[in-house]
Amino acid sequence: MFEKNMKISYLLDFYGDVLDERVRAVMDAYYDDDLSLSEIADGEGISRQGVRHLIKKGEEHLLFLEQKLGLAHHHGEIRASALSLLAVAERLKNGEIAPEVAADQITEVTNTIVSKGV
Amino acid sequence: MFEKNMKISYLLDFYGDVLDERVRAVMDAYYDDDLSLSEIADGEGISRQGVRHLIKKGEEHLLFLEQKLGLAHHHGEIRASALSLLAVAERLKNGEIAPEVAADQITEVTNTIVSKGV
Repeated sequence: MFEKNMKISYLLDFYGDVLDERVRAVMDAYYDDDLSLSEIADGEGISRQGVRHLIKKGEEHLLFLEQKLGLAHHHGEIRASALSLLAVAERLKNGEIAPEVAADQITEVTNTIVSKGV
Repeated sequence: MFEKNMKISYLLDFYGDVLDERVRAVMDAYYDDDLSLSEIADGEGISRQGVRHLIKKGEEHLLFLEQKLGLAHHHGEIRASALSLLAVAERLKNGEIAPEVAADQITEVTNTIVSKGV
């Protein structure tokens, strides 16, 4: 049996639109709607084994895309950089750091974003 | 005949790793190394028509991926936001804007980055 994998669910958010229509439907039912293999099989009019096959195919495609494109990984990095920037802005606004220091920190974090190439 | 499309060349930078190995080789030869169809055909040991077919297949795949994932488009947006942030940092450093104003601008641009969801 599978174990539902939260990483797959996360990747589905990023790459779901690229999957074949039927694979996407089964993946959404399994990961987003939390249906069982049997319930999906009934809904799709195919065997449980057929559902299992489509899910496996979808998982492999998602993992392949993430390995090649790294969109989810980059998203996490950009998000972390964004949080740093917001924290600097907050400290700057509250007068907790000198403008020059804030400017340098903003420049550094921003250059990190650019160099990530996303 | 094709016209070489700079957009395709740009998308190749983003999604090239996802293409089938042979399609990738032909796309690289055509777009990056600027070889002719005949030269690529000779190198690959296939017909010009075969090369043309692989390039068309690659182009369709790249355009499909960009339509679904928008990585190149997002990259442009993130880059524009990054340039804004660097400009704010520069003005802050030069004392051309008040810290509070800079803080608000940084927060606004950063929230744009986050909301883009990349």
